[in-house]
Amino acid sequence: MSRALLAFAAFALAAGTARADEGMWLPNEFPSDKVQAAYGFKPDAAWLDHARLSAIRLANGCSASLVSSNGLVATNHHCVRQCLTEISHKGDDTAETGFLASSPAEEKRCTATEADRLIEISPVTDRIRKATEGKQGADFAAALKLETAAITQACAGGDEKLRCDVVTLYRGGRYDLYKYRRYQDVRLVFAPEDAIADFGGDPDNFEFPRYALDVGFLRIYENGKPLDSKDGYFHFGEREPLPGEAAFTIGDPGSTERLFTVSQLLEERNVDLPRFVAYLAEDRGILTEFTRRGPDERRVGEASLLGVENSLKAMRGEWQALSDPALIDGKRKAEAALKGRVAADPALAKSTLSAWDDIDAALQRHRALSDRAFVLLRAERYSSRLLNYALTLVRAPVELAKPNGERLEEYTDASFPAQRQRLLAESPVSPELETVTLAYWLGKVREILGPDDPAVHKLLGMQSPEQLAASLVKGSKLGEVAVRKRLLDGGPSSSDPMIAFARLLDSEARPVRKQIEEDYEAVLDDAGGKIARAQFALYGNTAYPDATFTLRISYGAVQGWDEAGKSIAPLTRFSGLFERATGAEPFRLPARWLAAKDSLTASTVFDFATTNDIVGGNSGSPVIDRRGDVMGLAFDGNFQSLGGDFGYDPALNRSVAVSSVAIREALAKIYGATALLDELGTAPAK
Amino acid sequence: MSRALLAFAAFALAAGTARADEGMWLPNEFPSDKVQAAYGFKPDAAWLDHARLSAIRLANGCSASLVSSNGLVATNHHCVRQCLTEISHKGDDTAETGFLASSPAEEKRCTATEADRLIEISPVTDRIRKATEGKQGADFAAALKLETAAITQACAGGDEKLRCDVVTLYRGGRYDLYKYRRYQDVRLVFAPEDAIADFGGDPDNFEFPRYALDVGFLRIYENGKPLDSKDGYFHFGEREPLPGEAAFTIGDPGSTERLFTVSQLLEERNVDLPRFVAYLAEDRGILTEFTRRGPDERRVGEASLLGVENSLKAMRGEWQALSDPALIDGKRKAEAALKGRVAADPALAKSTLSAWDDIDAALQRHRALSDRAFVLLRAERYSSRLLNYALTLVRAPVELAKPNGERLEEYTDASFPAQRQRLLAESPVSPELETVTLAYWLGKVREILGPDDPAVHKLLGMQSPEQLAASLVKGSKLGEVAVRKRLLDGGPSSSDPMIAFARLLDSEARPVRKQIEEDYEAVLDDAGGKIARAQFALYGNTAYPDATFTLRISYGAVQGWDEAGKSIAPLTRFSGLFERATGAEPFRLPARWLAAKDSLTASTVFDFATTNDIVGGNSGSPVIDRRGDVMGLAFDGNFQSLGGDFGYDPALNRSVAVSSVAIREALAKIYGATALLDELGTAPAK
Repeated sequence: MSRALLAFAAFALAAGTARADEGMWLPNEFPSDKVQAAYGFKPDAAWLDHARLSAIRLANGCSASLVSSNGLVATNHHCVRQCLTEISHKGDDTAETGFLASSPAEEKRCTATEADRLIEISPVTDRIRKATEGKQGADFAAALKLETAAITQACAGGDEKLRCDVVTLYRGGRYDLYKYRRYQDVRLVFAPEDAIADFGGDPDNFEFPRYALDVGFLRIYENGKPLDSKDGYFHFGEREPLPGEAAFTIGDPGSTERLFTVSQLLEERNVDLPRFVAYLAEDRGILTEFTRRGPDERRVGEASLLGVENSLKAMRGEWQALSDPALIDGKRKAEAALKGRVAADPALAKSTLSAWDDIDAALQRHRALSDRAFVLLRAERYSSRLLNYALTLVRAPVELAKPNGERLEEYTDASFPAQRQRLLAESPVSPELETVTLAYWLGKVREILGPDDPAVHKLLGMQSPEQLAASLVKGSKLGEVAVRKRLLDGGPSSSDPMIAFARLLDSEARPVRKQIEEDYEAVLDDAGGKIARAQFALYGNTAYPDATFTLRISYGAVQGWDEAGKSIAPLTRFSGLFERATGAEPFRLPARWLAAKDSLTASTVFDFATTNDIVGGNSGSPVIDRRGDVMGLAFDGNFQSLGGDFGYDPALNRSVAVSSVAIREALAKIYGATALLDELGTAPAK
Repeated sequence: MSRALLAFAAFALAAGTARADEGMWLPNEFPSDKVQAAYGFKPDAAWLDHARLSAIRLANGCSASLVSSNGLVATNHHCVRQCLTEISHKGDDTAETGFLASSPAEEKRCTATEADRLIEISPVTDRIRKATEGKQGADFAAALKLETAAITQACAGGDEKLRCDVVTLYRGGRYDLYKYRRYQDVRLVFAPEDAIADFGGDPDNFEFPRYALDVGFLRIYENGKPLDSKDGYFHFGEREPLPGEAAFTIGDPGSTERLFTVSQLLEERNVDLPRFVAYLAEDRGILTEFTRRGPDERRVGEASLLGVENSLKAMRGEWQALSDPALIDGKRKAEAALKGRVAADPALAKSTLSAWDDIDAALQRHRALSDRAFVLLRAERYSSRLLNYALTLVRAPVELAKPNGERLEEYTDASFPAQRQRLLAESPVSPELETVTLAYWLGKVREILGPDDPAVHKLLGMQSPEQLAASLVKGSKLGEVAVRKRLLDGGPSSSDPMIAFARLLDSEARPVRKQIEEDYEAVLDDAGGKIARAQFALYGNTAYPDATFTLRISYGAVQGWDEAGKSIAPLTRFSGLFERATGAEPFRLPARWLAAKDSLTASTVFDFATTNDIVGGNSGSPVIDRRGDVMGLAFDGNFQSLGGDFGYDPALNRSVAVSSVAIREALAKIYGATALLDELGTAPAK
């Protein structure tokens, strides 16, 4: 894999010469001139505002968009997959059968889903800089936290319907305040069967040509009624995407590391990614065999398995990209050039030259702690749901009693509503799956820290991971929402064994987290900010920042690519789907699709590839044309796009979307979704 | 991890200055002078001959030694673990309960076990060199094969009781002929319970301090009677090892890569090891969850799981060693120095300088093929047993019809007897485990080659890996020894579905293997030989060759090490075992041990660490003192020893053995193994 265009290299180029189509651009600093030069179309302020208002961010890590005036939201199937597990029951696997609400009354609430709509962006760099100036380490971290809390508090004014975040851009080079309207009543309208939404499964994931109907529709409710979204929504297009035409993705790429220093990249390649790949690979094996136990295990475990498989393949792609010596060499040269220019400027040299050494020293300190951080802090995302609940219940009273500016981030006024929503979501808990996932994580705690580590002794006592997991899950009542609610609302101190265990874990994890935040993250913010400011000074502020799970717009075109002498066409069609279907998992078509085969138009464009520069987090992003109509929903990238964490190669990096026409045709001919199609409507006169 | 001493560096030192204790020395070129200098004892020819004759190599990849005049063999428990699964039945898990034959009549045959005793070594470098001179690629490979076959055929003279191998030393710098007496009637005498043999399980594997009774006793039979081994056996010692005293390990280290070029090491680090680690990690997850299904699944799957866990931890250790920039830097410097000296000598420059480029070009070619080779050739070792049987049955008639010098290596006269023994071994086959392992491998074939690869289409057809695995296993009769025997003996062409599948696989795997042998391995042999000869010319022949699973002797001392400011003592004692036992897996003691606790001497030395330079393949090696008495059996190394593939660090690299005194005390007080103890006897007068 060759990655000719690298982020540092981009900084070294003058404005306007950055290679076509690279970039996850800020909505308030969109390079309309570049688009004009490349595609003969210049998005104006109204176009950009409309795009921003029509975009929706899902707090679970996905993108989406409004596609009717009544709060209808289009996103990917895999972005609502967890909700499907939520509303499934023994003997009734909604993920397997698909779901369609024929009327609003039939829509089912996704109790863990938060949808955010971005209403304002404002600059706060000066305030943050002033508050943190001259501070280091723990002082820097504390000042940053305090000022951030003050800014967001003033912004939201205690109104939980608003969400205000201070976003760190350019790795500390700039801070902006993002103000969202927050919606926590989100309901499921439509989802196709797993078998067609994820057709091709893991083998086809991150690949193209592709044949997947990765779509799900939600509806946002406000005060018990569908949201009035007349002020901003996309028309869900009715025509095929055309090879070569301009395409825009509007969404929230999660995170990239294009501005990482070489030493950070090497740490990622040599330590962080391999450890994580091995962790996920084994987890995949466990979950694969677990879901084979029977249909119930499959129903409760499939979403977790899909998530692990997706992360695993993504990380292997990232690791592969970083293992290409050309990438590291390119980064090394660009870094050397920047350092050289910094060194040649006495003022910049004084303010900035030590930043690289500071980062290296922070990496050294982090290395000593990273095993511990990996397993102990990971519990919050990768162990069992019950343990997550327990941790939140243990921490919430402690954190919420502190001033907003001193809390752990997820307990701040800005973040806690989403956290509370997840805690009180009506997601059924499977004791079998809980036991397996908790035992796996506990086993890794022991494996990675070693059986003689004091923390391991404290957590496991005389029990094996399997024994402890089984007894904690069996003894815990936290699977019941009412119990969690009572405890959150300040019920009597609990004797629940999972709560007791979470207290032990909290006592071990907190100091590690504190040390990571103060000795590592604060240094990276501080040093990263210095490097970014030097770049602004030397090259001007013409580049886009690394992804931050905030709204970005990417421009590009419907386009295939050439690989190993083979030309990959940008469009796939329904006919190809039926050719690829073997009848065996994961190439098995749902019965409805087989039955409807003859009624479908074989030539309808199904999925398509574009040059848009997107990464994980963009899942569900609308791909719109210059009119602002949805041509499709981005749901993936090709395998080469996995190097997108570190750079963008215009020759190879492609995003993958499911077309609006395929979705419309399936809704009409396969799902009989008349009401939904009516709501999507026909193109308004423009 | 710091690895100051590297293999290329060793070449750069004059004889006698190589750092103490490094080296896996050829038994016929043992540096007795160095031992004399370091330990004041000079092993003479009689001592070395006695050691060689007392050593036994197990064809399954382990080392062992004769410890009585009646063919009694001591090795590790984990070297007989597969035999324990073989003789276990539903409801009677011998691995769980342990095994003791009170008399020869009760000894149970390990039908898959071959034991080899080395009786002669002779030089054949000149013959090989003459036969391959001036040849390259396919010609080189063919000539090497032909001459090797001619040499081994003349050596064994068609007698299957002899095994003759041409061993490639110094990566092609030298060839020696090894002549073994081959024994295929090997019976189990004693094995303790899994729980004490593998006490500490995966968490304690490759760690020290350690508390494991990793011992198993076998007996070699000849013509139905215990082997008369009066001509060479070790006395099984009766005294504790003393810190600081000299220790020798006699055994067969499997393979090391200390003479690899830098580019070979980088390929290993960046491509081969990570791919393998991910493969094994997921396999571990699958097998972990499989063995949790119930006691039957545990009985049939536990040995596979232990094997996978062991390989996984070993490879992670190797990967970690290679990720230390200091190691690669050291290798780079040593290589540059060698290249510099080669370039300065016109004759050497002409003959050798291109060798590094040849290796790099071969790596490039290999890279393009390595995914395919990984999955298709791996089937022979990592997929199901039934598929292995089928492949052997498909290939045997084809290969055996060819002249000896043109066959695939495992079908040559030298190798086929061991292959046939495994094929006809009475190992029960578990259809459940077979299905799971076959499905896993088939899934990886599809994942790694991609679902659109022609080979994948040919092998899977329209089926999923799970479907195909289930139908092949269900339809196959190859689980019955009689069926396999009939087919091997030339029964009618089989309609067994596994045979049919093996034919498909053979048609895909053969060309890959041929290409690997001709375009890659032959080039490495040729170029490696050139580099080695240059080293001999420049530095003299004072270094040991990389490990080749042939007999080596290592010298060292009973010694702990210092780590992170902590001093690790070289001995552990029974008292420590009872302190470490939590009652939970894998720190659970067998009932007999708990019952006998008070009768055991708490201070008895259990396991001990030495500085001997050993790697995988040495498992079961006797650790002998200068008298030639067995002080213990090597069964492991510390985590730092996993870098031993690439170099030896005298400060950190330690091997781990179980002491003879611990074994004797357990046999006496826990197992009541009176006859066995009688046979081990007391020290003979010397």
